[in-house]
Amino acid sequence: MTDSVDAVAAAPEPPLQSFASDNVAGAHPAVIEALSAANVGSVRPYGDDPWTVRAVDGLRELFSPDAEVLFTYGGTGANVALLQSVLLPHEAAICPASGHINTDECGAVERIVGSKLIDVPTVDGKLRPSDIAHLLHPEHGEHNVKPAVIAISQVTELGTVYSVDEIAALAELAHANGLLLFLDGARLANAVASLGCTVREMTVDAGVDRPPVGGTTNGLLYGEAAIYLRPELAARARFARKQTAQLASKMRFISAQFEALLTNDLWLTGARNANAMAARLAANVADIDAVQLLQTPQANSLFAVLPPELIRELQAWSFFWDWNSSEHSVRWMANFGTTEEDVDRFTAGVRHFAAEHAAQA
Amino acid sequence: MTDSVDAVAAAPEPPLQSFASDNVAGAHPAVIEALSAANVGSVRPYGDDPWTVRAVDGLRELFSPDAEVLFTYGGTGANVALLQSVLLPHEAAICPASGHINTDECGAVERIVGSKLIDVPTVDGKLRPSDIAHLLHPEHGEHNVKPAVIAISQVTELGTVYSVDEIAALAELAHANGLLLFLDGARLANAVASLGCTVREMTVDAGVDRPPVGGTTNGLLYGEAAIYLRPELAARARFARKQTAQLASKMRFISAQFEALLTNDLWLTGARNANAMAARLAANVADIDAVQLLQTPQANSLFAVLPPELIRELQAWSFFWDWNSSEHSVRWMANFGTTEEDVDRFTAGVRHFAAEHAAQA
Amino acid sequence: MTDSVDAVAAAPEPPLQSFASDNVAGAHPAVIEALSAANVGSVRPYGDDPWTVRAVDGLRELFSPDAEVLFTYGGTGANVALLQSVLLPHEAAICPASGHINTDECGAVERIVGSKLIDVPTVDGKLRPSDIAHLLHPEHGEHNVKPAVIAISQVTELGTVYSVDEIAALAELAHANGLLLFLDGARLANAVASLGCTVREMTVDAGVDRPPVGGTTNGLLYGEAAIYLRPELAARARFARKQTAQLASKMRFISAQFEALLTNDLWLTGARNANAMAARLAANVADIDAVQLLQTPQANSLFAVLPPELIRELQAWSFFWDWNSSEHSVRWMANFGTTEEDVDRFTAGVRHFAAEHAAQA
Amino acid sequence: MTDSVDAVAAAPEPPLQSFASDNVAGAHPAVIEALSAANVGSVRPYGDDPWTVRAVDGLRELFSPDAEVLFTYGGTGANVALLQSVLLPHEAAICPASGHINTDECGAVERIVGSKLIDVPTVDGKLRPSDIAHLLHPEHGEHNVKPAVIAISQVTELGTVYSVDEIAALAELAHANGLLLFLDGARLANAVASLGCTVREMTVDAGVDRPPVGGTTNGLLYGEAAIYLRPELAARARFARKQTAQLASKMRFISAQFEALLTNDLWLTGARNANAMAARLAANVADIDAVQLLQTPQANSLFAVLPPELIRELQAWSFFWDWNSSEHSVRWMANFGTTEEDVDRFTAGVRHFAAEHAAQA
Repeated sequence: MTDSVDAVAAAPEPPLQSFASDNVAGAHPAVIEALSAANVGSVRPYGDDPWTVRAVDGLRELFSPDAEVLFTYGGTGANVALLQSVLLPHEAAICPASGHINTDECGAVERIVGSKLIDVPTVDGKLRPSDIAHLLHPEHGEHNVKPAVIAISQVTELGTVYSVDEIAALAELAHANGLLLFLDGARLANAVASLGCTVREMTVDAGVDRPPVGGTTNGLLYGEAAIYLRPELAARARFARKQTAQLASKMRFISAQFEALLTNDLWLTGARNANAMAARLAANVADIDAVQLLQTPQANSLFAVLPPELIRELQAWSFFWDWNSSEHSVRWMANFGTTEEDVDRFTAGVRHFAAEHAAQA
Repeated sequence: MTDSVDAVAAAPEPPLQSFASDNVAGAHPAVIEALSAANVGSVRPYGDDPWTVRAVDGLRELFSPDAEVLFTYGGTGANVALLQSVLLPHEAAICPASGHINTDECGAVERIVGSKLIDVPTVDGKLRPSDIAHLLHPEHGEHNVKPAVIAISQVTELGTVYSVDEIAALAELAHANGLLLFLDGARLANAVASLGCTVREMTVDAGVDRPPVGGTTNGLLYGEAAIYLRPELAARARFARKQTAQLASKMRFISAQFEALLTNDLWLTGARNANAMAARLAANVADIDAVQLLQTPQANSLFAVLPPELIRELQAWSFFWDWNSSEHSVRWMANFGTTEEDVDRFTAGVRHFAAEHAAQA
Repeated sequence: MTDSVDAVAAAPEPPLQSFASDNVAGAHPAVIEALSAANVGSVRPYGDDPWTVRAVDGLRELFSPDAEVLFTYGGTGANVALLQSVLLPHEAAICPASGHINTDECGAVERIVGSKLIDVPTVDGKLRPSDIAHLLHPEHGEHNVKPAVIAISQVTELGTVYSVDEIAALAELAHANGLLLFLDGARLANAVASLGCTVREMTVDAGVDRPPVGGTTNGLLYGEAAIYLRPELAARARFARKQTAQLASKMRFISAQFEALLTNDLWLTGARNANAMAARLAANVADIDAVQLLQTPQANSLFAVLPPELIRELQAWSFFWDWNSSEHSVRWMANFGTTEEDVDRFTAGVRHFAAEHAAQA
Repeated sequence: MTDSVDAVAAAPEPPLQSFASDNVAGAHPAVIEALSAANVGSVRPYGDDPWTVRAVDGLRELFSPDAEVLFTYGGTGANVALLQSVLLPHEAAICPASGHINTDECGAVERIVGSKLIDVPTVDGKLRPSDIAHLLHPEHGEHNVKPAVIAISQVTELGTVYSVDEIAALAELAHANGLLLFLDGARLANAVASLGCTVREMTVDAGVDRPPVGGTTNGLLYGEAAIYLRPELAARARFARKQTAQLASKMRFISAQFEALLTNDLWLTGARNANAMAARLAANVADIDAVQLLQTPQANSLFAVLPPELIRELQAWSFFWDWNSSEHSVRWMANFGTTEEDVDRFTAGVRHFAAEHAAQA
């Protein structure tokens, strides 16, 4: 061990922004400024304030003038409140097996909404009509739950991006069978940046019924927006948000952040940067033998397979999580504030530890 | 109508801080500064960061070195997560009928935890041993839910404050019968300021098993602390917080706020101010015939009965809510930032509209 | 002790039918015969069989030709399925504090339906419009649950019987405020027998929206009927019954029992007997000093206060439960099969142990 | 059409017992007799009666002297009560995707227990250790539900039977990882008959922690037994049964049926007959070209693929359900009372309509 340490150069400086997730970042400075500016006087709580009016208007401009917008604390909460506000007790949501609501929300949907998630295996995190057509009309009446929602994420948990046509095909299938299409947009901005389309084209025009829009992953301290594109679906929504403990009393502080995010397309600029930095990292590490990229990044994340000891060394140097430890895969994710220097430092680190690891082998 | 308008002076300027609730206030400037200071670099999400370590340490110093501290987004969420982490399916919590979990959380406990609240009528929002002793051991076995928690608030929803001895008496009753005492401390600071005791005397020493501590009502933008004073009770707590959708990913921003609140006893200074301003308002309005105070304020809220038309006029001038519209009662509440000028302006407004109202009668 | 034993006669024979509850009885012989007759051949499960068609028709004749009828295993299940099939997540049911769903179903409504029960104290187990009018429109929007159902029992848990006018007044209040009136009819037959009206007068004509009708307490082995008098309310009902685990696969055996119960008004004959035997018992014990009747029986139950030691002695001789042990009250209940001899033997026993007890005092 | 009708003989008589399911059967005559015999006198409700003592003793003899036995109304209820009594809110059960709790209980587990089912695709309805080993320790802490139970069925929904060794392997895996093995024994008797082992060998000795045992599918009118083989697991069980609305008040009538079933091994005789009749049917139809058997029957059910029009004609003649209509598969199931004549009549019908169908083609 001493020998090999002697044989290699000292490890480079780690990046300032880690590549563990986009929630390792802080907030846009403009968001902090907006909070400070909103900290004046006394306003009514629970959203009856001018910041909320303006932030809702801003989101309506992006989505649809008729949209109902409800801010929540977090993304799991937004997912739960949206499902709670539409599902009847015997109704279920179809989702990809890799979906966040299925794998990473500790059973919140089953516990809080009380509804079954019908999870469907996918190749790449994307549901396709052919995967689910046979599930839409169960044959045994009241013995089966009744699918009422198709719940996808854009960007998916596996970093892939649905095309507008793929979303439209799911929406068409859903509506033709009396279901709703629900799109988890925690990284909607990254998808818009990736596809080069507008928010409206990807959601309203494609037939999406209700997306939540991520704020936290996109430069806020906290806060998500649950959006109802068909207002008649929103009747139960305010109760659902409160009952699922997602109604912020000092709402202005969520709304002011969203207002900042919507000003000068800060959301899009940040997402474009995150995507570009992921692409840069992918290009940078392409020639490192020890790193096997699982796909060309479509948004702001990369998935790679590395030797397990190399993973441990890199994690100790600049933290990220295992994606699937039995397959030795990891996820690296860039965020709105990741710089070229961060990418290059991280690349240097990967190169350094890979070389050291190769020397040891 | 024209005559009476002529007969009276123009309405005075309304206060800068309304008396509707303590969540109409913004945040302490020190809290905003702390957020700004925390917005540096990249740290692990979900609480694995230095701000959280320091904020937890600060709360342990106030409560107990063994306390387990979990931050949540909001107060309803803290209540739900705390109950979720301890109740078995057939167990119930006893609470005063006027309690926030019973009246103002839209059935969150019943929906999310799935547990019955056994609500007990009280005179003044305070449970007493004699109100509940007969409920502790239901006679019909599995036909009855089994009380496992006594859930009180300090300050109560009706603005009253338990003495340390009253809390200790409930704790003794609870423990002697195998129950836990759970104290909702959304306004714990105001209670400490009112009693002139320490946090520890009012909680740990009195036998409280788990309080959530309010941040939002006490000068934060958002954030509450769920505290487990007996660490063995915390085993299920992290899962409960995540499953109830109360785990903030960018946790440092809650923790940094709590750290600011704990620095130089900012929490106590703010609470003392709120209490003092409520007392000043009570003294100010004591001689206004149209205002009948329902009690001497014990913390930062006053309850008063006024003629209904006077209530409407005052609300249009400086908003507050009806407390009980059929009894024509209202609640006025001061906060950490309420000034003497706010109190005096509000008093002037009450006096003005009461005189106008008297002239009309 | 020896002396006093010498001083009294031997205890009389206990009654064949105990007075503990109406579920201590077996089944009508006609019901057993019907089961035996139904045990032929093979029929489709889950209610698609001729016995179910006939039993449903029989109940429609009693209630309304449009009624939707769903049989369940038990009464708690019928209550849960009925509420599950109509309440939205933020809606609540108002019930008397003494109601079975509130006190004796181990929190099934809160756990399975996830809904709050707003329990209202009453003098005699009966809700009155003046008790609940102020609860129908909570003032704080999404912060409060929204009452959607008034849930009463006829006969009540305290043995009292609503008049037809009293039910109609509650129905009118409910409907004028957009609520439904739900009547738990576990002992509907005893109420009909008590009032001398028809089932229809007491339910459909009075404005009841959905009663479950008791079978088990009325001479069946098991089985209740959940009845939807407004068919549009039944859309979710079949799913609710299955999901709450109340759908019997061999449904013919519930239906055949109901068919037997409806033949020759067996249900009414049995209920009349039960009521008459309760009245006889009340008359019999009226002159026993140690027994203080709490009310004149209105249906098939009596409530009485006795010295606690006398209660213990009587229970050891012929079992019944404490009603409220701290008040030394008990409930005695007659059933369809209670005979005059049972009543007279029980009276003799009460007289015997009361005398013995008086002698000891 | 007229021609082909002229060309074929009249359809044969359908069987007296249909092959749709085992719940199309009535009850063993001995079970009806036992009900009649139990209909004497008045006994305490809820299981405090001599029939229940004897039936519990009988099941303890089969399973284990320490077993805790709780009777429920139905199978879905038994499954729900068993899971309710052991799972904490963040815990989940792993089951085969084809399992009854996953597909045919209308989401009862998610709604009532509030827990996620982790459903695993299988080839033949049987879980194997290699299918699930990677699921036992999720990597992301409180973000993931925690598997706590492996829930299998014996016989499986697909008619296959685990060997004793296969069950033991799952139990070993479960226990080594801190999970419980829960075995749904709705058709346990058929499995015992198929394997030729004892109940104890297949459950207690193999390491099963808690089976529910089917009564309804095995000749009762209604009633299942939830069995806790490790008594310390039963602490919450009585509350869970009541809260899930599965506690029968006139319990003697379930217990008396079980007593009859256990007398002279009636349960085993019936199960052996059902299995033998399924085997006879498989042998009978083996040479019919239009019928493609999907497997050799291992217990009392056959799965077959037939031309869709032939399926419709046969169903109209003697009802059974589609198993999977898109694959044109059906399930045929024999029961305790199926006779050789039933099998032969059904075979004749299949042969008849297949020939007619071939003639039309």
